[in-house]
Amino acid sequence: MAAGTQVLCMGNAIVDIIARVDDQFLEKHERIKGSMMLVDAKTSAAIYADMPPAMERSGGSAGNTAAGIASLGGKAGYIGKVHNDQLGTVFTHDIRAVGVSFETAPSLEGAPTATSMILVTPDAQRTMNTFLGACIELTPDDVTADVVADAEVLYVEGYLWDSPTMKAAVLKAFDLSHEAGRKVSLSLSDSFCVGRFREEFLDLVHSQVDILFANEDEIKALYEVDDFETAVAQVQKVGKLAAITRGEQGSVVVTKDAAISVAAGPATVQDTTGAGDLYAAGFLYGYTNGHSLKECAVLGGMAAAEVISHLGARPEVSLKDLKSSLHGL
Amino acid sequence: MAAGTQVLCMGNAIVDIIARVDDQFLEKHERIKGSMMLVDAKTSAAIYADMPPAMERSGGSAGNTAAGIASLGGKAGYIGKVHNDQLGTVFTHDIRAVGVSFETAPSLEGAPTATSMILVTPDAQRTMNTFLGACIELTPDDVTADVVADAEVLYVEGYLWDSPTMKAAVLKAFDLSHEAGRKVSLSLSDSFCVGRFREEFLDLVHSQVDILFANEDEIKALYEVDDFETAVAQVQKVGKLAAITRGEQGSVVVTKDAAISVAAGPATVQDTTGAGDLYAAGFLYGYTNGHSLKECAVLGGMAAAEVISHLGARPEVSLKDLKSSLHGL
Repeated sequence: MAAGTQVLCMGNAIVDIIARVDDQFLEKHERIKGSMMLVDAKTSAAIYADMPPAMERSGGSAGNTAAGIASLGGKAGYIGKVHNDQLGTVFTHDIRAVGVSFETAPSLEGAPTATSMILVTPDAQRTMNTFLGACIELTPDDVTADVVADAEVLYVEGYLWDSPTMKAAVLKAFDLSHEAGRKVSLSLSDSFCVGRFREEFLDLVHSQVDILFANEDEIKALYEVDDFETAVAQVQKVGKLAAITRGEQGSVVVTKDAAISVAAGPATVQDTTGAGDLYAAGFLYGYTNGHSLKECAVLGGMAAAEVISHLGARPEVSLKDLKSSLHGL
Repeated sequence: MAAGTQVLCMGNAIVDIIARVDDQFLEKHERIKGSMMLVDAKTSAAIYADMPPAMERSGGSAGNTAAGIASLGGKAGYIGKVHNDQLGTVFTHDIRAVGVSFETAPSLEGAPTATSMILVTPDAQRTMNTFLGACIELTPDDVTADVVADAEVLYVEGYLWDSPTMKAAVLKAFDLSHEAGRKVSLSLSDSFCVGRFREEFLDLVHSQVDILFANEDEIKALYEVDDFETAVAQVQKVGKLAAITRGEQGSVVVTKDAAISVAAGPATVQDTTGAGDLYAAGFLYGYTNGHSLKECAVLGGMAAAEVISHLGARPEVSLKDLKSSLHGL
């Protein structure tokens, strides 16, 4: 059966609260630059109380990827849990407005819609402090066979391992996807996230995952190695398709037989939030539209370059228009 | 008694929902470009459902002015009503984070925190669609003698005339301010707002108001004249201090004896939202710091130029730093 959806993305539905801070702010609040740290309500309130005026924009790793695919003109769906509140309305509006199909029922009880306080330092690095809120209300019941089977590729963020019910929802989706003859794709999300779930992620990469997304730190953390080449060699041994981003050094697409390096898209970096998410968007758009692996990586680099050139983790211009300016794509 | 606060601002406490749209969007939804239109919940929902992905930032005319004064290093206070909800938390955080004193109790019942959908067209004009929500819960009880008496200048937005209880709160504040020997300042807000309350505004300008803020359209609407010079002559006859903005033509400060023209600050205009609010911020900061009227207008122009150079109605950089780059100020 032909798929109606190209990519079904699944992740934590989050509204970002974004502000520029200096390095001292990170030190004061004991944040690890570049990481995503989970915060409880109390820590969240303490950081927010000290945070400069901010802007709010929809985010969430897989949500950003879905928005990117839609912006490229692709058909994307999203599964994630918001609460029935103002920020849930914001998240729902923004992802639907760009053309993503999002039908997960909001929670009516329990915690509010998730927020992530994103601290952008002068070096354009982002440090994320996420209060998961309603995200943890995602359960296997939110994953249905028809929606998963309808999607050519299922794309899941590793962050979903942070709660047992979210993870159970993912594993159900993996099974449904494979039963329908579709591909399963995983993003390792964050090197600390890899640290928390390394054994499980390794097992998945060696078994159920068809397409792996990671950045250099994450893939090194997965294989507990210090150098990139050794990590790539490990991935190659597994024989899966992997797309590994390296910041301004671009990305490497790894298959059993090849490692294809592609340069990064040109960008004046303002805020690295969403770089990996949008790389995955470009790559998967290319993948599900019959582009070569090299072209997939070029599209990923293009989408990532757009999103890091401004504050906020979703495209500000039509990626479809941007793509049409790329020769031959 | 010396004032502890330089400027106490009073207005509708609003979170802006900002997106770029084309002119066709305004036509489809029958919006009048450049205006602020009040919308009910139903119209608000209809526009939002059709609106592109957006960003949320704290706004509200007088709130923007208070934030601007604080960003300049001045002591500002704010009176306005949010609901005890997520967007109310956002508004409260943002205005306090920049250093404004904001102690109005949030409403616990009734409508949610106000939002304004701000549609920015390619010509950088903003068209605002405001759902007043909790703002209309502002009452005279929210205005206390000690807070008003503590402020050298009371600054009020004309938009507060849109509900009888808000207006009653303003009139109480006017009386308290004058009783304490302070100055009262009014912004005409919007030419359609002037249309709605022209007689009352005229009466106030001729009686209670000490400092009047308006743009060219608003002052022409107030005096129902077609040309700017005639309007200025009318203001001059009243003998009050008035600061009238003219977009890229800068501003004119009008007193009984003089009309001082000052050029606009240099800017690449992205979004005109907040231009008048930040002009008032710069002007009143200068006024309460003993600057000449010409210098007040220069500071107003500087603050306005910063805010129109990006999306969002509050400063993105320290206006104090910006001011220190102005020779002699």
